Amino acid sequence: MQRSPEATRFLLVAGTTETARRAGISAAGADPDLLSTTPAADAELLTYGRPVRTDTVPVSPSGCPTPALVTRAVRELLDVDLTVVDGGLAEPTGAPTVSVGAGVGRDIGEQDPVPTAYGAFEAARQYGRALPTNELWLAETVPGGTTTALGVLRALGEDAMVSSSLPENPLERKEQAVSEGLEASSLQPGDAAGEPKRAVRRMGDPVLATLSGLTTGAVETDTAVTLAGGTQQLAVAALVRHGGYEGRLGLATTSYVADDDSADLRASARALDLDLVVTDPGFDASDHVAMERFVAGEAKEGVGMGGALAMADRAGIPMADVRERLAAVYDELLGEQAAETPTADGESR
Amino acid sequence: MQRSPEATRFLLVAGTTETARRAGISAAGADPDLLSTTPAADAELLTYGRPVRTDTVPVSPSGCPTPALVTRAVRELLDVDLTVVDGGLAEPTGAPTVSVGAGVGRDIGEQDPVPTAYGAFEAARQYGRALPTNELWLAETVPGGTTTALGVLRALGEDAMVSSSLPENPLERKEQAVSEGLEASSLQPGDAAGEPKRAVRRMGDPVLATLSGLTTGAVETDTAVTLAGGTQQLAVAALVRHGGYEGRLGLATTSYVADDDSADLRASARALDLDLVVTDPGFDASDHVAMERFVAGEAKEGVGMGGALAMADRAGIPMADVRERLAAVYDELLGEQAAETPTADGESR
Repeated sequence: MQRSPEATRFLLVAGTTETARRAGISAAGADPDLLSTTPAADAELLTYGRPVRTDTVPVSPSGCPTPALVTRAVRELLDVDLTVVDGGLAEPTGAPTVSVGAGVGRDIGEQDPVPTAYGAFEAARQYGRALPTNELWLAETVPGGTTTALGVLRALGEDAMVSSSLPENPLERKEQAVSEGLEASSLQPGDAAGEPKRAVRRMGDPVLATLSGLTTGAVETDTAVTLAGGTQQLAVAALVRHGGYEGRLGLATTSYVADDDSADLRASARALDLDLVVTDPGFDASDHVAMERFVAGEAKEGVGMGGALAMADRAGIPMADVRERLAAVYDELLGEQAAETPTADGESR
Repeated sequence: MQRSPEATRFLLVAGTTETARRAGISAAGADPDLLSTTPAADAELLTYGRPVRTDTVPVSPSGCPTPALVTRAVRELLDVDLTVVDGGLAEPTGAPTVSVGAGVGRDIGEQDPVPTAYGAFEAARQYGRALPTNELWLAETVPGGTTTALGVLRALGEDAMVSSSLPENPLERKEQAVSEGLEASSLQPGDAAGEPKRAVRRMGDPVLATLSGLTTGAVETDTAVTLAGGTQQLAVAALVRHGGYEGRLGLATTSYVADDDSADLRASARALDLDLVVTDPGFDASDHVAMERFVAGEAKEGVGMGGALAMADRAGIPMADVRERLAAVYDELLGEQAAETPTADGESR
């Protein structure tokens, strides 16, 4: 196994927002009841390669595995220091976590959905300042997170659009949720421009609060930060820009998000002056079940998938190796489960 | 850097007992107020190589550095998966931790010093069962822990003696504390034989409860366990034996503990049927300030030092390399601090 430079650290912020309970806005779990478990499970998959306290590997209703498996596959090829930060977990996780005081996020339609936002931002900022790291890659797992990302972008007055874990982006539902949230918070779009903590507290989720705090603290001590993810990380970048930071900031995402016409990520990244890296894992070259749902446009990103792919690419690891490892990780974790899935004619395959 | 087998994991259980506030029983901090910070700092040192939320590197009143620096030095030579478990921390740590519900331990002289013992034991047991690991090395950091270890051994009716982080083992003070504890708990020596959870709840500390739970769970799923440490780990072994486990169990410690005449570790390890590995780091071959207090008999063990040395030795890493790395770690963290220490004639050196 290759080893990445010691001064590189991959940080996963795992948390929840009850916004995910709204029908039809997230594919990050087989059913709504499991959505709140997904971040805890993702943290365990990244840390140990399998569930420890949770008991299922998150899959979408149609069987797309969590992108945590992709990031884990890369981690098995490229040894990199990993830390999980509790960004408001709802279920216990067996993964070790750093606490910044983030609590579960409530629904975006409530008046104060993230009461822990200010405290989590500041604790994360202190932690980001203190981390002895030259280079930080920040990832997220929060079902429903693109809706709260949209809420934050609107509160800040940014016109970027967000992508989706579903093949068809339910933008109307998201806009509806954001409208409710703005009304409940007595905000007009743009009212929180220049006030990132207010924006994330009123319209965001605890993961966005934690990520923007981490980024703000890290850049204060000249740590290079790459936001690993899709349009949720655009919202983090917007929060950090509205906090006054004008220096370098990276965004590493997958080709699935970058090619999503419902959200013009490239234009938004330019508007926020981000160094964008897009990596295509080439899943269409495989016919393995682990990859086919990604090719069909599901998931697209999450759990730092785009960042992990970029790190692998930078280290010279061929995407074919990543795909091979992903297939092995999937088969070990979900092979039996998949074998029990009935086919169209009702037989197990 | 070498990489240890992936199926090997080093687990540090970090926690506290207010027993450490008793005068003259622990050297695991420069003054009594700092003792409760030591485990949080040790966890950060092992994880990041430097303090993150804590702001000092623990040293004894006479300047002996925490053995965490030795374990960290080994970790910089031999990459091994590390997880920190919160065994009742009193101060926030920036290290990621797994929670098992352990709270701060109260003074051994109280009637119920570890009310979280049963819950922590069971949660740790479940976690130990679920960990995907072939081989587990378990370490501890808990100032005052040899006194509570003695309490547990007496409650179980084991006649093993305990060592000390001080050059002169304050055995009378420890026996006095244990007598108070037995009386407060209405126990005679041996009354809790065969009842390990009762013994650790009434006379132990939350780290002992967590370690014995982890060990019990791990061996249930045929994970090989090595207890990394000195006489506190003897108490863990006794708890596990009294819980009915008769299979293999390892104990890896330093020559400083094994050669401590005030506690006959070798005989006790034989009595508990433990596979004992003793490693001498050869600190007497160095005149570096990082090592001289160890040679003088301070600290002796802790934070898995003996286990880390054994892992290094097994991997073929020469002790000279460990010493060299330890000196470098010390100089980076404590070099300036040491340079400000006044010498006998009042001048800085």
